[in-house]
Amino acid sequence: MSKVWRGFASDNYAAAHPAVLQAMVDVNEGHQVAYGEDDSTKQLSVLIKQHFGESAEVFPVFNGTGSNVAALSALMERWEAVICASSAHINMDEGGAPEKVAGLKLWTVPTPDGKLTPELIESQAYGFGDVHRSQPKVVSITQSSEYGTVYSVSEIKAITDFAHKHGMFVHLDGARISNAAASLNLPFRAFTTDVGVDVVSFGGTKNGAIAAEAVIALNPRVAEALPFIRKSYMQLASKMRFSSAQLVALLSNDLWLQNAKHSNQMAQLLFKEVSAIPGVTVTKPVQANAVFAILPPEVTERLQKRFRFYVWDPATGEVRWMCSWDTTEDDVGLFSSAIAEEMAKA
Amino acid sequence: MSKVWRGFASDNYAAAHPAVLQAMVDVNEGHQVAYGEDDSTKQLSVLIKQHFGESAEVFPVFNGTGSNVAALSALMERWEAVICASSAHINMDEGGAPEKVAGLKLWTVPTPDGKLTPELIESQAYGFGDVHRSQPKVVSITQSSEYGTVYSVSEIKAITDFAHKHGMFVHLDGARISNAAASLNLPFRAFTTDVGVDVVSFGGTKNGAIAAEAVIALNPRVAEALPFIRKSYMQLASKMRFSSAQLVALLSNDLWLQNAKHSNQMAQLLFKEVSAIPGVTVTKPVQANAVFAILPPEVTERLQKRFRFYVWDPATGEVRWMCSWDTTEDDVGLFSSAIAEEMAKA
Amino acid sequence: MSKVWRGFASDNYAAAHPAVLQAMVDVNEGHQVAYGEDDSTKQLSVLIKQHFGESAEVFPVFNGTGSNVAALSALMERWEAVICASSAHINMDEGGAPEKVAGLKLWTVPTPDGKLTPELIESQAYGFGDVHRSQPKVVSITQSSEYGTVYSVSEIKAITDFAHKHGMFVHLDGARISNAAASLNLPFRAFTTDVGVDVVSFGGTKNGAIAAEAVIALNPRVAEALPFIRKSYMQLASKMRFSSAQLVALLSNDLWLQNAKHSNQMAQLLFKEVSAIPGVTVTKPVQANAVFAILPPEVTERLQKRFRFYVWDPATGEVRWMCSWDTTEDDVGLFSSAIAEEMAKA
Amino acid sequence: MSKVWRGFASDNYAAAHPAVLQAMVDVNEGHQVAYGEDDSTKQLSVLIKQHFGESAEVFPVFNGTGSNVAALSALMERWEAVICASSAHINMDEGGAPEKVAGLKLWTVPTPDGKLTPELIESQAYGFGDVHRSQPKVVSITQSSEYGTVYSVSEIKAITDFAHKHGMFVHLDGARISNAAASLNLPFRAFTTDVGVDVVSFGGTKNGAIAAEAVIALNPRVAEALPFIRKSYMQLASKMRFSSAQLVALLSNDLWLQNAKHSNQMAQLLFKEVSAIPGVTVTKPVQANAVFAILPPEVTERLQKRFRFYVWDPATGEVRWMCSWDTTEDDVGLFSSAIAEEMAKA
Repeated sequence: MSKVWRGFASDNYAAAHPAVLQAMVDVNEGHQVAYGEDDSTKQLSVLIKQHFGESAEVFPVFNGTGSNVAALSALMERWEAVICASSAHINMDEGGAPEKVAGLKLWTVPTPDGKLTPELIESQAYGFGDVHRSQPKVVSITQSSEYGTVYSVSEIKAITDFAHKHGMFVHLDGARISNAAASLNLPFRAFTTDVGVDVVSFGGTKNGAIAAEAVIALNPRVAEALPFIRKSYMQLASKMRFSSAQLVALLSNDLWLQNAKHSNQMAQLLFKEVSAIPGVTVTKPVQANAVFAILPPEVTERLQKRFRFYVWDPATGEVRWMCSWDTTEDDVGLFSSAIAEEMAKA
Repeated sequence: MSKVWRGFASDNYAAAHPAVLQAMVDVNEGHQVAYGEDDSTKQLSVLIKQHFGESAEVFPVFNGTGSNVAALSALMERWEAVICASSAHINMDEGGAPEKVAGLKLWTVPTPDGKLTPELIESQAYGFGDVHRSQPKVVSITQSSEYGTVYSVSEIKAITDFAHKHGMFVHLDGARISNAAASLNLPFRAFTTDVGVDVVSFGGTKNGAIAAEAVIALNPRVAEALPFIRKSYMQLASKMRFSSAQLVALLSNDLWLQNAKHSNQMAQLLFKEVSAIPGVTVTKPVQANAVFAILPPEVTERLQKRFRFYVWDPATGEVRWMCSWDTTEDDVGLFSSAIAEEMAKA
Repeated sequence: MSKVWRGFASDNYAAAHPAVLQAMVDVNEGHQVAYGEDDSTKQLSVLIKQHFGESAEVFPVFNGTGSNVAALSALMERWEAVICASSAHINMDEGGAPEKVAGLKLWTVPTPDGKLTPELIESQAYGFGDVHRSQPKVVSITQSSEYGTVYSVSEIKAITDFAHKHGMFVHLDGARISNAAASLNLPFRAFTTDVGVDVVSFGGTKNGAIAAEAVIALNPRVAEALPFIRKSYMQLASKMRFSSAQLVALLSNDLWLQNAKHSNQMAQLLFKEVSAIPGVTVTKPVQANAVFAILPPEVTERLQKRFRFYVWDPATGEVRWMCSWDTTEDDVGLFSSAIAEEMAKA
Repeated sequence: MSKVWRGFASDNYAAAHPAVLQAMVDVNEGHQVAYGEDDSTKQLSVLIKQHFGESAEVFPVFNGTGSNVAALSALMERWEAVICASSAHINMDEGGAPEKVAGLKLWTVPTPDGKLTPELIESQAYGFGDVHRSQPKVVSITQSSEYGTVYSVSEIKAITDFAHKHGMFVHLDGARISNAAASLNLPFRAFTTDVGVDVVSFGGTKNGAIAAEAVIALNPRVAEALPFIRKSYMQLASKMRFSSAQLVALLSNDLWLQNAKHSNQMAQLLFKEVSAIPGVTVTKPVQANAVFAILPPEVTERLQKRFRFYVWDPATGEVRWMCSWDTTEDDVGLFSSAIAEEMAKA
């Protein structure tokens, strides 16, 4: 493949938005106190309060796995457990970090579309007080989900109500929270702070940063624990100004929204194009920046020689196509044509 | 303090070298495979082999703590232990990450100057085969040390010989490895690969990067384990091209050396200036970019209102002054004058 | 309930066999080297080799959870994972010890009857080499299973063949291994050592001991690691002669077999009796010492006021009845009559 | 050595007191609810309240390491640390269990005699609020200490006062708490509950049990956490009646005191005898059941062929001789004569 190529494998194959890099260049002047007492981090704190409410405290970390494991640990005693979807990133794709770094037990629930419901959570929310059962303490949901689906405000409210009623907390893995907000056409706080979410893993990397994630503490317990947990979990940046500057860039002038909207639109376009190709079945509602579809395996194989993307479920032949902030209409057109061509040979 | 101020608190209060940021801008084009299969990481691999020898494999990580804990874990069974100086960063300043993330037991040894010797190591290298004693398996040394001292090639050779003879490995914490190389006027491999060091934590952040550290596997065991450990220890960057580009920038055109030499020279200048001030006692040999000295506590207190720096040992009044790649002769002059002024009031 | 009552809740509500306590009294003479160099442990080693083959090495531990976690850890690198049934004790009933003590990731598979098959294992045995997926390394099966079912020799052979072909090991949780051997009418080695099982958690407590479990290393890797793992996992008894004496008592004169046969027979008797009661549905094959059945919830509630037992699945009303080495025909008769009485009121 | 031999290596080489085994035989009747709801454990709870005060809650565990790690963890957040003597069992002799099972960081302090003081603790009690320093949270002391010395009531009071003033808790490792109580001629509560100790590891094994240790929660935080921690740390016995019966036997009719007094007296006798042997230097105050002395290495070597005991410090030639509840005056006489004989050859 040529040096400047395009694909649909992951939104982290994308470059960074130029404004993000420019923001890093802009703060590269003089000395700043390390580990978070810099001007950019102060600016970020103000912005996060604007977006998530006055009680919100922000803690930049290095990556999504670090964000999730730190956020969850801050709400859990050593013997407690997380209830999450089987398809959750924390279960499937973090190399066992929740278990290995923090000893977190995961009680997993199969879901049709990556989204939990009170009923699904209930299937694991039992045994409170029974020492033999690692005690359910946090419900973790992903917004937008690993299947590109989006929780409505009321769906999240139902989950936080259920969780809190049973003495549990709610964590929202927002690796793609901007795509969800853009899809819902709502500010972040409408589906987090305002409906009782306790802690958010806020993702900037897939939204156009180079490496910028943060734990956002909405429940004050998290804010107390996080400074220490972040350090002992190896997620504390020394020159933090450069992490914070990235998030500041995204959260200023609605750059986050523009990027998210664009990638969602590209997914809609791709959905429209592939839906028209005979033999391609789209398997999940397209609500954010992902399209899941089933293709004949031999078509997938040929297509992967031309474009990078992942087979999500080898059993069914389901594949995942991700659009990014820098996916173009041309990219979608070329890719759709390629699918159509390869399908025609099937 | 004004926005663009200067201090001697830490070399991570410094900005990044402009060439590092430019390198990040330069690679910000098109898609790249995430998690290390990008062009910059390939380029970095080639450079590392040039600097450390053909057997060296490089694994970029986020920070020094992550680098140390991953490097050590790759060489240790679950029940084994590390021998290190009491003053080692892994013991003193990592929030317990070695113990908490990886269950590493540290057998610590007091040292006069932050440097271990075979004799000092031997005081903890016993009990092999005794299940009650967490088994010593890795000796960890810091080059340049937390006290700004530098191991000679033969000192490291004596340590690796001793360690290997007892079935142990040697880890070199190189958060400031460039300062050591500049001080010794030797290539990296002369005091690592060529004398039997098994794994290096290679530091770029303090040398002028924004956040760029790497584990360098010299022993092939490390290279086998590291990909998995890096992921499960939450140290794997998705858009790795930007981490690697920083290290590529430092390792190209001897930028690393220029930065390290400069900060070492500034420390020498500072050493010369403060040595001339009556009542100031420099406490450690100045071999890299740090100056340790004892001042009257009230002088320290007044001085800290004008310049940021740390008291290292409250019991003795010992303070630490760090020079960075961007410390200027003027900075040193202003600071020395301030010290002289405050001392004059003592 | 009176002081000397009987129930069907668990085989660990039972007393110890008098011969076990007598064996402890018999070794209570003079000094013995602590931590396993005593005469009883030597005697146990000989007996275990007789039962499991010359290569078997035995390591007494305190309880079943300790045995399982130590056995699994001995075969796993820090980043690896276990494949087990969702119903496995290590997943459901160990308070998260595998995750919390050892950082073990569990890939769980739903099963109809508590037993894995190569096909079921295959559903999780993928992603080898992919750092994002915690690497499957050990398959853990329970014999007899948590549902009172028993693997045949060929079923275990199929699993070990599959596992070894994929570079994985096999652990057998034998908390009730004696019930399985009695049910199969085979020596232990026929379904462990001889078919390639790598490590066994051998249970004595439910078979009539007071607290006597052991890891039996069949794969030499386990024997190398276990002494250190046992100590650092807090499972090393100082006065080990008393643990070993219990296992020696069980393994001498076929006491283990007599106890296991008896409890299996009582389960068969109970199965026969309750099968004749209209409205009671036995849900699992009765192959060891457990009977699972579905009763109307109100009957369960009334019955639990008379006899202790557990509801296994609140959703279906499934209950578990365990028979022990000390369950009598009278116990079964009284309990069956009580079930019939309460069902008659339904 | 003959089957019924005697030594001075450790108080856990001793047999169990016959009354302890008899108590186990006595409770071996009928079914009892597992995991602590049995009659013996209820009886133990009552006894512990008599000995430690009404607020004390007892949690039997398997061994001393399990007791210490569970007790400490119950009082510590994930990022916190323990201050202890370098010679503490938790540091030296637990195979790294505190670090490996629970991620506990130990800040160790050298002591002259195994005992901490507020001044010694203060040397590590700093950096509160600094995320880089694993936060000191529990001070752990051993009573009687690993060097056979005993804290006075006022010495412990000074430590708890200091600790509580700094927001820290105090753990007392009482593997030999009975020897301390006997030495002080005081009830347990006088130097624990009454002077503010938060949690005790209560040792029965060395006092004449087969395997009986317990966490005694004096601070209510411990009682809340311990049931869950004990289970997930693999320290929960199913047939707990047999653990509890052992402790009940020791705590009834002052058997604990009789055993402890006797072993202390034997140590005094041994101290007296060896003090009279020219060339033998006793190195620590003999306040409990241990005698530490320095012998010429060649004498030690010859003597170890006749009696088992440990060299404690190979550098100085210091050896440890432990007396047990079953050490006789004849044992002491034979051993002293042997020392005198071997010294005479020196």
